[in-house]
Amino acid sequence: MKAFITGGAGCIGSELADRLLQEGHQVVVFDNLSSGKEEHIYSLTGNKNFQFVLGDLLDLAAVKNSISGSDVVFHLAANSDIKFAEGDPTDEDLKSNITATYNVLEAMRVNNVRKILFTSSSAVYGEASRMPTPEEEPLMPISLYGASKAGCETMISGFCHMFGMKAWIVRLANIIGPKSRRTGKTVITDFIERLRANGSELLILGNGKQSKSYLLTDDCIEGILTVFRKSDGMVNIYNVGPEDFVTVDDIGRMAAEEMNLEDVKFIYSGGDRGWIGDVPKFLLDTAKIRQLGWKPKHTSAEAVRLAIRSALRR
Amino acid sequence: MKAFITGGAGCIGSELADRLLQEGHQVVVFDNLSSGKEEHIYSLTGNKNFQFVLGDLLDLAAVKNSISGSDVVFHLAANSDIKFAEGDPTDEDLKSNITATYNVLEAMRVNNVRKILFTSSSAVYGEASRMPTPEEEPLMPISLYGASKAGCETMISGFCHMFGMKAWIVRLANIIGPKSRRTGKTVITDFIERLRANGSELLILGNGKQSKSYLLTDDCIEGILTVFRKSDGMVNIYNVGPEDFVTVDDIGRMAAEEMNLEDVKFIYSGGDRGWIGDVPKFLLDTAKIRQLGWKPKHTSAEAVRLAIRSALRR
Repeated sequence: MKAFITGGAGCIGSELADRLLQEGHQVVVFDNLSSGKEEHIYSLTGNKNFQFVLGDLLDLAAVKNSISGSDVVFHLAANSDIKFAEGDPTDEDLKSNITATYNVLEAMRVNNVRKILFTSSSAVYGEASRMPTPEEEPLMPISLYGASKAGCETMISGFCHMFGMKAWIVRLANIIGPKSRRTGKTVITDFIERLRANGSELLILGNGKQSKSYLLTDDCIEGILTVFRKSDGMVNIYNVGPEDFVTVDDIGRMAAEEMNLEDVKFIYSGGDRGWIGDVPKFLLDTAKIRQLGWKPKHTSAEAVRLAIRSALRR
Repeated sequence: MKAFITGGAGCIGSELADRLLQEGHQVVVFDNLSSGKEEHIYSLTGNKNFQFVLGDLLDLAAVKNSISGSDVVFHLAANSDIKFAEGDPTDEDLKSNITATYNVLEAMRVNNVRKILFTSSSAVYGEASRMPTPEEEPLMPISLYGASKAGCETMISGFCHMFGMKAWIVRLANIIGPKSRRTGKTVITDFIERLRANGSELLILGNGKQSKSYLLTDDCIEGILTVFRKSDGMVNIYNVGPEDFVTVDDIGRMAAEEMNLEDVKFIYSGGDRGWIGDVPKFLLDTAKIRQLGWKPKHTSAEAVRLAIRSALRR
């Protein structure tokens, strides 16, 4: 199998590339290194089955050229910086997610590449009425990021039905792991950085009660490959996440513990969410992927603690 | 109220403009006349409350400039040519629907215009598992047109939640009426044209059993305004259509009857649908809008017959 991985120099993509190479597949990583890092794929460059293409998905000709001959596309590239601040451009998700995904699909179509796995997000649901949230929940995103991921999903559905493609769409919980992005902080790296600067207090965006699910990269990749290999519809949509969540306060407490800090005072920016477009609480219903035999090795709480330890070692 | 109507020179938009002017509102029609026609709005040009702007939604600066000072946007402009033929460009819906809608939303945001009514489509559902299909049905479009309308919906949801806007999204059945588009045929005009050329036989795309719902423009506008005026959530999504459907064979028979043709032989192109991306059967569940007090004056069968008569008079 020849796999084309967009965003393959990212935290998830580079681990997926490594895994597929270990299984003996050919891998082409296509990345513009805007949030991915070359150091994530250094260790792969000696492998004869590995190729890295520095390119941008907004360059349709480049995508068409590079995707030719692939058997499957793992489309992970995206604007991963979900936070929106007053004054930010509003077209970042339109370009990096929707237009980029259109270019991937169009390049696949003209090159007769018929399989795509797309990493979507729990953000497509917005503030869901059902929790845990099943895949059938109507999509009502509350952020431009979630809106664009939902738009990518429907565009993939259109291309599959029109042009005989097959798609695997995974709606991921928050993914954390041993690697860090070039740009944009996670709550974990943000807390560690703040506590290193001042070990007596910690600024927490919102009220600290935001409740989210976290999945380690390893579990995520196992989930992605389970969905890809064990479901066989035209458009296969699966939630991928743990069965529990942790609060932002929990993460703050765990970071302080792992840094051996005591009596850290939490200071709250206030409100029920961290930023405009933030979903305060989510928990995915993962009954569907569990029927395929997958379950994560770690709970959200365990994943967060392990990710904190990784970050502290870096 | 100052209403900004995109696609306001189209079959629906021009009737909506007329209706709002009659109610005493100010109306700005923004249209690139790609499928709309100037003749649709000739009769409005004498009204001091009416303004026509010849412009393209892909020109963000023009949209920003023209939308300024509006109270509400009725965003009807779209690529209305749903049929896709081998060799057609695949980015038409991306541009005319998704990018255009983004530009409308961004122009609203910077001008502090906070209300948008968006004409979506039954096509967002694809081949729905439930029929009649309620608004909660997951969106699984089977055409690029349907995919782009679904993408617009989720983008609107994102902008509403991020920037304090309110939206009314109407998922319309097939709309037919006394006016015709500049480009693209409806099944009705296609049948009349073919029967005028040859009154003894009629080529029907598919097997003739495709079953769809049709709504007259008048009923559509009443539905749109009912949703806009009587629902008050942040994102209000309503199906708008009749409670019945007719088959393509029915339409062929009605066209022949109204043209006083007998013994017309129907010839079928075959397959269960008219073109790639065509949804063979749809019927919208309209319980939600009926609770607002709206119901159409005409059934699908009546609407089709009246539209045939209008077309024959043109």
